[in-house]
Amino acid sequence: MIEIDLIRHGRVDAPAALYGVTDVKVSADENQNIATSLSLLAYRSCNSSAALGYDAVYSSPLIRCLELAQLIGLQNQLSVQQVSGLKEINFGIFDGVPFDKLADVDLSPFQQVKQQTPWSILETFWQAPAKVNLPLAEPLIDFNIRVSQAWHQIVQQAMQDFLACTTDKQKIAVVCHGGVIRMILAHILQLDWRNSALYSTLNIANGSLTKIVIQTINSANNLSDSSVATPIHYQVKQIATPLTL
Amino acid sequence: MIEIDLIRHGRVDAPAALYGVTDVKVSADENQNIATSLSLLAYRSCNSSAALGYDAVYSSPLIRCLELAQLIGLQNQLSVQQVSGLKEINFGIFDGVPFDKLADVDLSPFQQVKQQTPWSILETFWQAPAKVNLPLAEPLIDFNIRVSQAWHQIVQQAMQDFLACTTDKQKIAVVCHGGVIRMILAHILQLDWRNSALYSTLNIANGSLTKIVIQTINSANNLSDSSVATPIHYQVKQIATPLTL
Repeated sequence: MIEIDLIRHGRVDAPAALYGVTDVKVSADENQNIATSLSLLAYRSCNSSAALGYDAVYSSPLIRCLELAQLIGLQNQLSVQQVSGLKEINFGIFDGVPFDKLADVDLSPFQQVKQQTPWSILETFWQAPAKVNLPLAEPLIDFNIRVSQAWHQIVQQAMQDFLACTTDKQKIAVVCHGGVIRMILAHILQLDWRNSALYSTLNIANGSLTKIVIQTINSANNLSDSSVATPIHYQVKQIATPLTL
Repeated sequence: MIEIDLIRHGRVDAPAALYGVTDVKVSADENQNIATSLSLLAYRSCNSSAALGYDAVYSSPLIRCLELAQLIGLQNQLSVQQVSGLKEINFGIFDGVPFDKLADVDLSPFQQVKQQTPWSILETFWQAPAKVNLPLAEPLIDFNIRVSQAWHQIVQQAMQDFLACTTDKQKIAVVCHGGVIRMILAHILQLDWRNSALYSTLNIANGSLTKIVIQTINSANNLSDSSVATPIHYQVKQIATPLTL
């Protein structure tokens, strides 16, 4: 069994804005609180050790994830594996612009939106994020493909590590972003990733835990033969459990 | 703001089986553990009182939900409102039959399945629950309509109570079943309720908490006029958080 904890980074220490690829920090205290809560949760679950018990830690390279991942790595004596495909979506000209400065964004170079206001563009985007491209932003379909590939890469690595070890359980931490967690959930639950409610209605809070369990259907013997496709069964065990109050 | 906690009943005190409308009990200890965990969670959240702080408690009439709901009601000095539409789906001839007795089920009266085994029928059902009807079972589409109506009824009542009170937050407990929680989530998140992964991959554990928040967009004045449609905004805050370990 492979247990994958998707952990969303903490609240960023910066003005309210759409943060995609803009690199902003989370305070050291907030990161420490999340890491401690994860330790306590692991301790209460296994009732034997205060160690987190992760066997691998993956992270988005963005600092709001990476510093938390490094704390978790430290607690588990593991180095963090950075996965570029786990970065948040790029919100283009609006990325990282504080909401109270949105009106200052120069729309004149962008033919398709120059008659609109930044707020009306964003509203249209959230209503149909797969159809509306924000200027200079990453299209949702590209984000979907990128995250699916990153997820596939992590699962493949986790399967190989699982086969190489002697335990019956591998536990993996993936520190990443709200949009990334939604895309992974859409992928596993076969949901339509274009559905706007996934973004506007499903809330993945800062510092929350989403747990995925992978059970292999075939025996380990079959799995070790890389030429044989490995049927695996996913279970989504919990979504967006708050780690800190 | 209205906060609705969907609580799945505890593990039933009966042999492993598909329990739909079959009425089986949960042990008093298990119910007490779940109710206590809910109290602790509320206490940690609001940091002021050990009371659960619910303003209304709704329940499926089935005993595995109702006894837990009554405990929660007792803690909040509230009577439980039973909602028939919150019952679990009816699994027909397989409902409540222990898995190790499935082979004894007489399929001969059912033309469409009599050449199959109970296990193969169930496997086909889980692969396409909206297309395959188990003998004498409730079709998934009927279940979907029934649960949507029950949910609508609870939300309407909650909105009326919210308008009648002076607080800015109403908190409601709904004790129900795994299938019912999936249908409510599908409804709110605009997911395809026929998607088999919602049933086979999304795990709603016994004694888990799924939290929905409703924010009204219009002012209270508009809401009190029942002739005006009330735009409300849903947020799914967490799904299947385990309450007990």
